[in-house]
Amino acid sequence: MISGKSLIVGTWADGSGTPFSSYNPATNEKLNDFRGVGLSQIDEAVHGSYEAYRIFKSFGFEQRAAFIDEIASEIEALGDELLETCNKETGLGIPRLTGERGRTCGQLRAFASLIREGSWQQARIDTAIPHRKPIPKPDIRSVLQPIGPVAVFSASNFPLAFSTLGGDTASALAAGNTVVVKGHPSHPATSELCAVAITNAIKKHSMPAGVFSLLQGGDPEVSTHLVKHPKLEAVGFTGSSRVGRILFDAGAARPRPIPVYAEMGSTNPVFILPKALENRGNEIATGLAGSITLGAGQFCTKPGLVFMLKTPDQEAFKQALVEAIGKIQIGNLLNAGITSGYKEKISAYVNNPALTALAGTDMASATLFTVKAADFNANPGLEEEVFGPAALLIECENQEEMMQAIDQLGGHLTGTIHSNEDAEAGAIKLALEEKVGRIIFNGFPTGVEVCPSMHHGGPYPSTTFATATSVGTAAIERFCKVVCYQDAPQTHLPLALKDDNPMGVNRLVNGEFTTNKINA
Amino acid sequence: MISGKSLIVGTWADGSGTPFSSYNPATNEKLNDFRGVGLSQIDEAVHGSYEAYRIFKSFGFEQRAAFIDEIASEIEALGDELLETCNKETGLGIPRLTGERGRTCGQLRAFASLIREGSWQQARIDTAIPHRKPIPKPDIRSVLQPIGPVAVFSASNFPLAFSTLGGDTASALAAGNTVVVKGHPSHPATSELCAVAITNAIKKHSMPAGVFSLLQGGDPEVSTHLVKHPKLEAVGFTGSSRVGRILFDAGAARPRPIPVYAEMGSTNPVFILPKALENRGNEIATGLAGSITLGAGQFCTKPGLVFMLKTPDQEAFKQALVEAIGKIQIGNLLNAGITSGYKEKISAYVNNPALTALAGTDMASATLFTVKAADFNANPGLEEEVFGPAALLIECENQEEMMQAIDQLGGHLTGTIHSNEDAEAGAIKLALEEKVGRIIFNGFPTGVEVCPSMHHGGPYPSTTFATATSVGTAAIERFCKVVCYQDAPQTHLPLALKDDNPMGVNRLVNGEFTTNKINA
Repeated sequence: MISGKSLIVGTWADGSGTPFSSYNPATNEKLNDFRGVGLSQIDEAVHGSYEAYRIFKSFGFEQRAAFIDEIASEIEALGDELLETCNKETGLGIPRLTGERGRTCGQLRAFASLIREGSWQQARIDTAIPHRKPIPKPDIRSVLQPIGPVAVFSASNFPLAFSTLGGDTASALAAGNTVVVKGHPSHPATSELCAVAITNAIKKHSMPAGVFSLLQGGDPEVSTHLVKHPKLEAVGFTGSSRVGRILFDAGAARPRPIPVYAEMGSTNPVFILPKALENRGNEIATGLAGSITLGAGQFCTKPGLVFMLKTPDQEAFKQALVEAIGKIQIGNLLNAGITSGYKEKISAYVNNPALTALAGTDMASATLFTVKAADFNANPGLEEEVFGPAALLIECENQEEMMQAIDQLGGHLTGTIHSNEDAEAGAIKLALEEKVGRIIFNGFPTGVEVCPSMHHGGPYPSTTFATATSVGTAAIERFCKVVCYQDAPQTHLPLALKDDNPMGVNRLVNGEFTTNKINA
Repeated sequence: MISGKSLIVGTWADGSGTPFSSYNPATNEKLNDFRGVGLSQIDEAVHGSYEAYRIFKSFGFEQRAAFIDEIASEIEALGDELLETCNKETGLGIPRLTGERGRTCGQLRAFASLIREGSWQQARIDTAIPHRKPIPKPDIRSVLQPIGPVAVFSASNFPLAFSTLGGDTASALAAGNTVVVKGHPSHPATSELCAVAITNAIKKHSMPAGVFSLLQGGDPEVSTHLVKHPKLEAVGFTGSSRVGRILFDAGAARPRPIPVYAEMGSTNPVFILPKALENRGNEIATGLAGSITLGAGQFCTKPGLVFMLKTPDQEAFKQALVEAIGKIQIGNLLNAGITSGYKEKISAYVNNPALTALAGTDMASATLFTVKAADFNANPGLEEEVFGPAALLIECENQEEMMQAIDQLGGHLTGTIHSNEDAEAGAIKLALEEKVGRIIFNGFPTGVEVCPSMHHGGPYPSTTFATATSVGTAAIERFCKVVCYQDAPQTHLPLALKDDNPMGVNRLVNGEFTTNKINA
């Protein structure tokens, strides 16, 4: 039974704000009633988060890791109820959601392992030189530490992996912070079930209740009030450019500014070079069609811009792509707002004389349009993300037009190069290094591996901080600060900085990386 | 001969903006006339910086390192002229400036060594697993890369080490960026000489001229125009909270926001615990007096707040501190603005009935006031930095009052604990971890070691990003972004990510730190 309540510092409470309901996007059937939280309930949640932080941060790494492992187990213990509830709210289908649940639990366990291993703390030690002239060198040591209460704004397109207990929450908890989640209003029952799971883990591990709160609601005021709370220290957000920027601005304009790590829209340019087209045209067309339509085109890494150089193989490729797209059935979009937004954008494409429709204007398949590079370059709005199964093919007369297009691009999460040792690849790669967070060679941008080297980020407007990733273990760094200790007695040092290195972590000691003890 | 011009992309140009002059703060004698730059000259400098970046970033690490080493040599080659010019403009004295020149050249050479060693790039590699089920794992590699043109705002209080060729410029260049410096108007001839030095290094190493520009001027409009330039990528600033916040806001409010790393005011609380006072009262008094008065109290790490618990030794300590301060002669302050600001603050202290003067209200020595913790806690304005040789002694009736004071504090660069195994030290350290960037035990906060573990930063308002340091080799991270490569051919990978690890850097390979080659 879904209660329709919010979880505020361990108590399930009726929201004192605006009521809303959830809907099945496949059938438009109404599912559940909820009440959004009121402003005083937000204050209560952040205050409780702050009080809990003081306790939670003092727990040992093993306690923290075991708690996070337990969250994963509790998600799994929800069983089919979670998948069925989530499928009703999103229409993403049980196979996809089963995979996404696996990814969500895998992420949590990866962060638990990371905490236990300990090298993520970036311990640095420079030992004293008491007899240095003209003044003695003190002993200096620094390490990453948690920051305090973190707000997480759930995404609609990954109702498990980028939502209530997704990567932002996992990485914030792993660093030793407490979390207040603002649940996405298009899958509130899914969020409630996840909150039940973490509540069970909190009880089993005797964690302070305020370590996690879930605020339900869809009012913009709720979001900005949360970001402005004086005790909040950072924000993780995945969603639209418009909302991401509003929250970023709210964080920056506070009396005490805080970082808002927003992962926003991205159109993920793809460059298909002549030799690759000649050698692998059909293969690329099939792969691209799959990537454009994955999750009904609602991936932040969906390839929305496909650049080609004029070649004899171009027409055959276009035809192969149209055919491949035509074979793929598109499911419903995530909610009514996304559906109407998508239709509006496609209708603008149809009415744009510079664009030619190749597929999907009947909405029976993904949509594909083509445009000459000169027109694309003269019309910067065409770079904007179309959230849904649509892509734009940009036909470049020559490399100069292609390079000019890259130079004009804003920031994107990814850029893809298909090259069979094509001469143009080097220049394109160099240019993309200034424009995207991840450069994929001869592959497709959807599918974001969870691993230490993954960078799911990119220059603005794809994110608000080009140094930050929201996927992979480096995501933990967003929710840490550096604390440095000078001439501290051993008893006052964090574990990772103690002489005998009890965790055995990799440390930068007097400029060299080592797991050795000091003076041993 | 000082030209009074600005260096704009390799050309010495008369500023088209507001004229200003430099003064000797010890004698009020006028020294040189300058013309501040106009807005179109700023545009020219940043545009040239952007063009130069595309060339500079492609140079090898050895080329970059040799260029930075050369800058240090060229500073030294300026000889006594630099020291004498700088002393006239700042009155800081030749011995101090000789030391600061050594620090400045040492910083540059430390960054040159860092580049050559290469591990600062944080290379991460996760190798492919082609047969993984359900889908193959791609090869993912990530590394830090430069970001583009960086603006550096010079500080008045370190006319060499935090100015034209100081730590911000050194770390930005080391990462592979180009730099536009806005020189501080209170030491413009010193800035000009430093610009001559780097111009020589640019010529000797055939660097693009736009790699460095120096803009002279004091108009606030010049500063905000620079921060708002669309091609700028980041800002380093050292100075007042007021100006730092203006620039931070300008950076955040841009159509494309950029980070403004501002290191601003700090009052650096010191906690002297009873047993330390009993055992080392005189020693602490002498050290503290030296730290308060170093550089006429114009260090960002000057201890301005000294907290004590009520003990029988308290009065003797106060007397010892007053005596020690009385023995130290204070030089001139850096400029007329700082002098009048200091006098205003001291006059407000004198007129505050909660404060009692202990020393220096005649301005013959540093000033020392005392206040009861209850009054301090009721008067949050007393936490604000007094830039100059002043400190406030806060007398706490008990630990509770002391802890309440810490809880109310904003962010500071440092916090200091004097403890001889005092029981209170643990709780104070835990509380300070949330408030300061560096915790010093039984020492003094002035004197900031340049080393990998140094963190010269702290929570707002001491800086705008609690993760960033402006001293030490980690300062380079502020001016980098992450770029990730998926399934990239070896030829397209940056050096640090190539299989055979030609630089021999420390890398995180499949979760383990190693300098090993891949598949070797």
